[in-house]
Amino acid sequence: MSQWKQIQHLEIRLLEHVDYLYDDNFPMDIRQALASWIEAQDWETAANDESMATVMFSNLLSELERVRLQEQNFLQRHNMKIIQQQLQVKYTSNPALMARVISTCLREERRILSSTCTQEQGPLEKSLQN
Amino acid sequence: MSQWKQIQHLEIRLLEHVDYLYDDNFPMDIRQALASWIEAQDWETAANDESMATVMFSNLLSELERVRLQEQNFLQRHNMKIIQQQLQVKYTSNPALMARVISTCLREERRILSSTCTQEQGPLEKSLQN
Repeated sequence: MSQWKQIQHLEIRLLEHVDYLYDDNFPMDIRQALASWIEAQDWETAANDESMATVMFSNLLSELERVRLQEQNFLQRHNMKIIQQQLQVKYTSNPALMARVISTCLREERRILSSTCTQEQGPLEKSLQN
Repeated sequence: MSQWKQIQHLEIRLLEHVDYLYDDNFPMDIRQALASWIEAQDWETAANDESMATVMFSNLLSELERVRLQEQNFLQRHNMKIIQQQLQVKYTSNPALMARVISTCLREERRILSSTCTQEQGPLEKSLQN
C-alpha cells in the first residue's frame, strides 16, 4: 500500500496534521494524482543536487501533463492546468526548492504514520504540533 | 438545467474559453460545488452595493463551510478549506470586488453558451478571444 493510501486511513485527528503540510508550495492534488510516482523518487538527494532536481522537476511536469491529458473531468483538468502553471512560476528557477518541499512533506507524513504505531503517542504528537 | 450543467456539455473548443475565466480570484471548485446557489444570487447588483456584497460574501462562506463539513473526500475537504482561507484574505475588505468577479464569470458563461445557438459563430467567437 502506498504511503499516501496509508495516510487516507488515518483518523481525523492525525489527518489534520497532514492537512497543514499541503498548500500552494506542493498542492495536495499532485500528491494524490502522482502518489506512487512521487514516492518512487529520491527527493532528499535532489534537494541538494541542482541538476538532479532540474531533471526531476521536468519529469514531474511531464507526469502531470500525462495525467491531465487522460483526465475526463473538466474541473480536475482545469485544476491540473492551473497547478502546472503555478509550479512553473514557482520552481523553474529553483527546482531544488521543490525537491526540498516534497522531501519534507514525505518525511512528515512518515512521522505522522509512525506515530500511530507508537504505544506512547504523547511526546510524538506534541512534536507534530510544534 | 443549471447554467453550469449546460457548460459541461459544451464542446472542448468552447470549454477552453470557460477555462480562462477561472483562477484564484474565483476558483472553479466553488463554481461547481455551489452551482445552483451561485446562479440564484444577484451578483450584478451586489457589485455596486457594498452592504449587499458584504452579506453575500458572508453567505458564500457559510455555504462553503456547509459543503466542506458534508464532504467525505479528504482531498476535496482540504481544497475547500484552502479556498475559504484564500477568499477571506482576498475579499474580506472588498466583498464588492468578489461580486464583480462572479458577475463577470456568469455573464461570460452566458455569452459562450449563447454562441452555440448562433448560426454565424464567427464574430462572437472572435470577440471571446479578445
